[in-house]
Amino acid sequence: MTFSATVLTLYPEMFPGPLGVSLAGRARDEGKWSVDTVQIRDFAANKHRTVDDTPAGGGAGMVLKVDVLARAIDHARANGPEGRPVLAMTPRGRPLKQQRVRELAQGPGVIVLCGRFEGFDERIFEGRQVEEVCIGDIILSGGEPAALMLLDACIRLLPGVMGAASSGDDESFESGLLEYPQYTRPQEWEGHLIPEVLRSGDHGKIAKWRQAMAQADTRSRRPDLWDRYGSDRGLSASGARQNGKDLG
Amino acid sequence: MTFSATVLTLYPEMFPGPLGVSLAGRARDEGKWSVDTVQIRDFAANKHRTVDDTPAGGGAGMVLKVDVLARAIDHARANGPEGRPVLAMTPRGRPLKQQRVRELAQGPGVIVLCGRFEGFDERIFEGRQVEEVCIGDIILSGGEPAALMLLDACIRLLPGVMGAASSGDDESFESGLLEYPQYTRPQEWEGHLIPEVLRSGDHGKIAKWRQAMAQADTRSRRPDLWDRYGSDRGLSASGARQNGKDLG
Repeated sequence: MTFSATVLTLYPEMFPGPLGVSLAGRARDEGKWSVDTVQIRDFAANKHRTVDDTPAGGGAGMVLKVDVLARAIDHARANGPEGRPVLAMTPRGRPLKQQRVRELAQGPGVIVLCGRFEGFDERIFEGRQVEEVCIGDIILSGGEPAALMLLDACIRLLPGVMGAASSGDDESFESGLLEYPQYTRPQEWEGHLIPEVLRSGDHGKIAKWRQAMAQADTRSRRPDLWDRYGSDRGLSASGARQNGKDLG
Repeated sequence: MTFSATVLTLYPEMFPGPLGVSLAGRARDEGKWSVDTVQIRDFAANKHRTVDDTPAGGGAGMVLKVDVLARAIDHARANGPEGRPVLAMTPRGRPLKQQRVRELAQGPGVIVLCGRFEGFDERIFEGRQVEEVCIGDIILSGGEPAALMLLDACIRLLPGVMGAASSGDDESFESGLLEYPQYTRPQEWEGHLIPEVLRSGDHGKIAKWRQAMAQADTRSRRPDLWDRYGSDRGLSASGARQNGKDLG
């Protein structure tokens, strides 16, 4: 089955872009996924092909028109596999998590709505059941770079794309913890040594050290993940901190 | 002054990619920023141009070699303006925030290190003072799509790039809150009306409504931001929640 992505954008020439090479590019050549684009401007109602208008109530910038967006979404839904969710890339959205990426990668594909200017007319989200997602807490010139990130994250999870090269399970976010630090040869580099435990050959000790490092790094770098990790295991947030301190 | 980006990657053909068109593309044509790439493989030590090796202590995947990475970084530092920070795109990094993007955009540029496989030999970060950043809590096939997002976020903040079209201040994350919802004509669409207050012409009431909506949406969609917003204002997290409830 082919994972089918449709991107609604004012800049279709941005796709597939970086997804046309390397891992994603090979997977596309093999038919494991496909991407097509819908030019939002094609669904404007007037001869000037207007897609935006000034914000109701005043303010700077321009807002993408709900009627134009709705026609573009309807077109994408009618021209692709059924059951694809529509995701809008917007800083107002809920943060996209790896768990949701896994769900998407197991489905028929995704319709991705990319905004520019001051964003979307809010009515589109309820009117067309659009899921608002935020990839990171930074502001972009448009949704397209975020769409590329979303698609890359989905594609690598499609069956047969990663191969055996990457295990998947140990990775950051999959277990609720950051991944442990990695090292490889040379053993000494500019006075920095690979931690001794990793050279011990004692697999039990190595696994324990890696788990402790994953916990310690999550605690110090990502207190938000660490608190969730603790509460998922029935510990209070402070209990999780305490537990991590013992191990770290 | 030109904001100078250098991307260290195994896939230089991914750049400028989407940054070659639209807002970023025009700014590049006008000399407001530049991007060049460094092929990490060019800094391998052997004739097979090996850049990776198996993880110390065992495990799946391959780790990028610290000596190769160091030579590539040294080359980028020697061939560009002084004072550019090196940022590595990695899920183990600290989440990149808009405040850091603002700082970067005010500087001479940035060197961006993109990984593939199981990631970097950990010693590179201390050995070459590399800042580890995470753009979103999802796993990519490599750092390149994240690098495109980082650069896009910086470029739009460069002087003269956005123009007056976008105010900047009201946007999500700038004030610690999500932006308020936006609407534009038509006034009625498929039975959905623009909120009446926005059609009142009363600018004081509109500003108050927008602030209340920004708070209510931040509280419900992003409790993490909401707690920070409260504590930055000397409220306890629960006090901020209470305050938001009154306004929402």
